[in-house]
Amino acid sequence: MISANKAHLRSWLEVPAGSDFPLQNLPFGMGHVPVCGLRALSRIGDQAINLAALAEWGYLKGTGIPGPDIFRQETLNPFISLGKPVWSKVRERLLEIFSEDNAELRDHSGARARCLVPVDVVTMAMPVQVGDYTDFYASIDHATNVGKMFRDPEHALLPNWKHLPVGYHGRSSSIVVSGAGIHRPNGQRKPPDEPLPVFGPSTLLDFELEVGFIVGRQTAMGETIPVNRAEQDIFGLVLFNDLSARDIQSWEYVPLGPFLAKNFGSVISPWVVTLEALQPFRVPGPRQDPPVLPYLRHEQPGNFDIRLEVYLQPEGSVPSRICSSNFRHMYWSMAQMLAHHTVNGCNMRVGDLLASGTISGPEPDSYGSMLELSWRGTRPLKLADGQERRFLEDMDQVIMKGYAEMDGLRIGFGECRTTLLPSKSWT
Amino acid sequence: MISANKAHLRSWLEVPAGSDFPLQNLPFGMGHVPVCGLRALSRIGDQAINLAALAEWGYLKGTGIPGPDIFRQETLNPFISLGKPVWSKVRERLLEIFSEDNAELRDHSGARARCLVPVDVVTMAMPVQVGDYTDFYASIDHATNVGKMFRDPEHALLPNWKHLPVGYHGRSSSIVVSGAGIHRPNGQRKPPDEPLPVFGPSTLLDFELEVGFIVGRQTAMGETIPVNRAEQDIFGLVLFNDLSARDIQSWEYVPLGPFLAKNFGSVISPWVVTLEALQPFRVPGPRQDPPVLPYLRHEQPGNFDIRLEVYLQPEGSVPSRICSSNFRHMYWSMAQMLAHHTVNGCNMRVGDLLASGTISGPEPDSYGSMLELSWRGTRPLKLADGQERRFLEDMDQVIMKGYAEMDGLRIGFGECRTTLLPSKSWT
Repeated sequence: MISANKAHLRSWLEVPAGSDFPLQNLPFGMGHVPVCGLRALSRIGDQAINLAALAEWGYLKGTGIPGPDIFRQETLNPFISLGKPVWSKVRERLLEIFSEDNAELRDHSGARARCLVPVDVVTMAMPVQVGDYTDFYASIDHATNVGKMFRDPEHALLPNWKHLPVGYHGRSSSIVVSGAGIHRPNGQRKPPDEPLPVFGPSTLLDFELEVGFIVGRQTAMGETIPVNRAEQDIFGLVLFNDLSARDIQSWEYVPLGPFLAKNFGSVISPWVVTLEALQPFRVPGPRQDPPVLPYLRHEQPGNFDIRLEVYLQPEGSVPSRICSSNFRHMYWSMAQMLAHHTVNGCNMRVGDLLASGTISGPEPDSYGSMLELSWRGTRPLKLADGQERRFLEDMDQVIMKGYAEMDGLRIGFGECRTTLLPSKSWT
Repeated sequence: MISANKAHLRSWLEVPAGSDFPLQNLPFGMGHVPVCGLRALSRIGDQAINLAALAEWGYLKGTGIPGPDIFRQETLNPFISLGKPVWSKVRERLLEIFSEDNAELRDHSGARARCLVPVDVVTMAMPVQVGDYTDFYASIDHATNVGKMFRDPEHALLPNWKHLPVGYHGRSSSIVVSGAGIHRPNGQRKPPDEPLPVFGPSTLLDFELEVGFIVGRQTAMGETIPVNRAEQDIFGLVLFNDLSARDIQSWEYVPLGPFLAKNFGSVISPWVVTLEALQPFRVPGPRQDPPVLPYLRHEQPGNFDIRLEVYLQPEGSVPSRICSSNFRHMYWSMAQMLAHHTVNGCNMRVGDLLASGTISGPEPDSYGSMLELSWRGTRPLKLADGQERRFLEDMDQVIMKGYAEMDGLRIGFGECRTTLLPSKSWT
């Protein structure tokens, strides 16, 4: 584990000021490397580290990997399946190889040329094959805002909300990596003043600012993951944009939950940031009152202080920051989500993605969706270029950023970028 | 396509009276064959047909398969991915090879010995890798019963129900093949007379009688599947037991739908019956009033007359038939479900499973769940051995059967069998 006392370490690779990817981050991802093809990568500063090449040159001996081929698969799943001791050792070894005073690779220009690739020539791909994707609803400010808008302002939270992390299954086929263009969905909606539903492009298209985490261990049906060891089974974290068509959602979601309102596309950031990199940023979550049932009780703080930002960039214009939130606001921790998800014996597979649900903070500019930021469209957002937005418009780009920062150490996620394309005509 | 005029065809293989698997069925499945290993199979009577062996002996030339290896994969997905023209040709060719008067294989004892295996020595496996699983709520009698019990008897159907096939995403990791033992789940439930939720084994465990269908073609994000060609993209049908913990469900499901109440285990029948085999049993669905939106309008009848039965067998006792329903009762057709699912551009993958939701008919003995059969436990079912049941008890077996029958032709599914194991103690 890279502990806070490694904050002073520097790499012999240049790390630009303000970079999300210092030596202490070392995230994992998949990317198309020119000439080589699809490869498992890590990253320092603006250099991608070709892990297959590193293994081929013998730099990853003793980490427990079976050979370079583990980094030449379609996704990280086979690597993750080797188990946490192996990922941890690979990360420890990267930390060693790239440390300022380590000459092994630094002074071997032949190997360096093969193992390092500028990130701007790499096209990032989906880091994992997601078997099942589950979305939670675990931010108390978000759930309260939604409850105030659509239910009872006096009793905004439903009776179950403080007793369990409410979650539901989502669609895994349509999760794509940052940079994607997603078409505005067509669908049924029922305008309040019409007697019958109408069909056409969604008129209330939204993002949801979320953090997702990737499961790192397969479990058997009937097996549970106890809350106090759940973090051991998390491979790492990504930013997650859960695009939502609010008009489709409000018509379809009773009684079985959101369906076509969300399954047309979700977008994740390409670099999976490990919990090891985020250890220095662990913070307590809010006090849970009423007390939760024993299977959800933590021994250690389970939240992480990760600043989250959303920028909206209209076509041909500049980005405006429209939201500043923080992952520390979560009422339910990742460990609680995973423990709850498996307490009934539901089995997990490597690569499964669990997402937090919209992460809103207490302040109006920390709300993690247009629905909340514009308060159902009643308070339009003013953008830097003078435009207004209630919901997303065609060709808008939504850019999510996330980073943890303290005492000169910044561990970040890069960005999760989505372009809203116009709806396809329906034939 | 095997049309009704092929109903007179007989195989040189013996088909026991009342078998679900005459020459006209020719379903696909995966099974562990002694000595050989996991193989793609078809079936006639009580003989499994080893498709890899058949291809190896040269019997499948001209069908478009790349070679015998396509039948030696983990699942049918690679075979299905070859496309409908190939599955259809393989089926046509099987029909030819096994027809009464065809001597090619019949009189070649060496090949026959390699290509045929008694089904009782084969252990069936999951036929497909399910990427995403979606469950619908498409039986009007079921939705009406649930609405009467839990909402308003006068307005049992919610406003959206007749305008769209309500559906939600389920868990694919825990879908297993017939014969499975599934542990009673632990979880939170909130007894009406308790101030706080309690934790423990579900006390209201139920089955849901459903039919699932398997998607046969991959689509791109943004692509739609029009209702009138949707059946072309269905590989075949299975029986589906959507186990449900009613007490967990009622506490957790508002507002985002069922989650832990259903994701601990679902069970499918092993033989995938093709729509081609079911063509003679096509029937009109109910008149849809109010008329549905154009994207859901059928040109041809989209329902199928498939009799469905559920038997409950307590440990050490005999099976009692507790439900006789029919797939023809569905308000929404499979084609409508698939067209609706993709109208927003949600992409499909080969092997995706869409299930009907509980299939209830209008009569009390045609209800497809214990919830409805015992009317929330108020009318216990009397079993053949004198026992009573409101919900499922530990070691009960639930056996679902399905078959279409007309003019001496019977096309069946075999069975979908589930054993309810006691809950695991929670630590």
